[in-house]
Amino acid sequence: MKNNFNHSVTIEYTTSFHDTDAMGVVWHGNYLKLFERAREALFQKYNYGYMDMQKSGYIWPIVDARIKYTNSTFVEQTLLITAQLEEYENRIKINYTIRDSKTGKKTTSGYTIQVAVCMTTKEMSFVTPTIFLEQFGLLK
Amino acid sequence: MKNNFNHSVTIEYTTSFHDTDAMGVVWHGNYLKLFERAREALFQKYNYGYMDMQKSGYIWPIVDARIKYTNSTFVEQTLLITAQLEEYENRIKINYTIRDSKTGKKTTSGYTIQVAVCMTTKEMSFVTPTIFLEQFGLLK
Amino acid sequence: MKNNFNHSVTIEYTTSFHDTDAMGVVWHGNYLKLFERAREALFQKYNYGYMDMQKSGYIWPIVDARIKYTNSTFVEQTLLITAQLEEYENRIKINYTIRDSKTGKKTTSGYTIQVAVCMTTKEMSFVTPTIFLEQFGLLK
Amino acid sequence: MKNNFNHSVTIEYTTSFHDTDAMGVVWHGNYLKLFERAREALFQKYNYGYMDMQKSGYIWPIVDARIKYTNSTFVEQTLLITAQLEEYENRIKINYTIRDSKTGKKTTSGYTIQVAVCMTTKEMSFVTPTIFLEQFGLLK
Repeated sequence: MKNNFNHSVTIEYTTSFHDTDAMGVVWHGNYLKLFERAREALFQKYNYGYMDMQKSGYIWPIVDARIKYTNSTFVEQTLLITAQLEEYENRIKINYTIRDSKTGKKTTSGYTIQVAVCMTTKEMSFVTPTIFLEQFGLLK
Repeated sequence: MKNNFNHSVTIEYTTSFHDTDAMGVVWHGNYLKLFERAREALFQKYNYGYMDMQKSGYIWPIVDARIKYTNSTFVEQTLLITAQLEEYENRIKINYTIRDSKTGKKTTSGYTIQVAVCMTTKEMSFVTPTIFLEQFGLLK
Repeated sequence: MKNNFNHSVTIEYTTSFHDTDAMGVVWHGNYLKLFERAREALFQKYNYGYMDMQKSGYIWPIVDARIKYTNSTFVEQTLLITAQLEEYENRIKINYTIRDSKTGKKTTSGYTIQVAVCMTTKEMSFVTPTIFLEQFGLLK
Repeated sequence: MKNNFNHSVTIEYTTSFHDTDAMGVVWHGNYLKLFERAREALFQKYNYGYMDMQKSGYIWPIVDARIKYTNSTFVEQTLLITAQLEEYENRIKINYTIRDSKTGKKTTSGYTIQVAVCMTTKEMSFVTPTIFLEQFGLLK
């Protein structure tokens, strides 16, 4: 088993006309916005949202992202976006799955990897800062 | 005559697939990005770009914007976007006109209004700061 | 009294990190996305959403838009966006007001104007098509 | 040697204020727009741009995308974006590298994978259609 922790959240999002492109589907780059909404919900669930990060003295830039497109999505489609913490020791890896809310059919998946950067020193942290572990209940 | 000064710039922009929406045309909200590109070119022409603003101690938020849509624009269309300074004494009003580069036909027009806000006091300036007038050669 | 009808809807929207710009506030052009979300909710309330429009044989391009910025909005801020039908006889004018959900303070307002274009003839309709009036209960 | 063909293009792009986020850097999702601009230039170089695709009877949805972030980019930064064809036999894989135009320092890299879908049958093509090979001079 890869991990013995389970931190995830699922949000609902209904696509808007401005999410689409000339092919009549959600533009492929806009899924990173949907991933971000789910990631924000996950961090907020553990009381480590944007404002909390600022207070904690760390920013969390994304250093790697991947998106796999299984099925197109359309205007006025309601999606369920799940974000799940996959790795946390040295860097934060979050997996995403997007499904149609009615059929449950998977439309999109992917991941993002973030690292902690100290706001004062501008240096990248090679182990995940204690504050993250505390908030997510992962401190051993 | 409305004004006896003439500060303007025209930039070229070729639309990209991600500018479009499901109707196959550039999404109406994206024209504010095109206005911004032309406005940035205008400010840079007078050596008052983003970095210069930061150094000058002022930010210039937009307080009013209008867009009139005359003709749609499409993927792979090259546009000429003109930004022209219209007012400057108390607030900066810039007019925009977008034309097709081949036919010269007008597609879009509009304006933005900006005010100066002091970065230190966070207060809005009711007259345009001297630094702007100097850079634009409008100091009497 | 300007009109004796009252068609409006208010939606909730929580800002996301990708809505912001380098000044730390929601980028001024992104409010047209928020207006669009509220407009979509208004049209759907009267069973005339995107799919219904397609079936009705009309598209409804925006020909004019205005945005007035009263107060900035920030990451993780929950907003209430109201869209209200203001004119409908020859063109559809919708007014928008955005308020902070906690304080009720107005942050942004504006309008959009749309006209009906027949999908078959590509011609603009100078009176609002019957289908719109029917759906919105405005047929006399 | 991985491939004995060499199809690439490098475009210049200067970042705009609306590309940035509240951290003062280009928002991570916007690099897919930069990849797209370079990909469009690559396809146009071989006379297979958006309009040509439409005429050829195929659309080319993206089925996989990856972005690796090496260095942040900022407002008013001029970037060189290279798109290079990496695979073409069954699917189109394009690699991207973004560098600062002054220093040559790499900021971002990644890839996209596209497949051909027949506009008539809506079916995915498991070998790259002849029209693509012809346009890119890859027909054996």
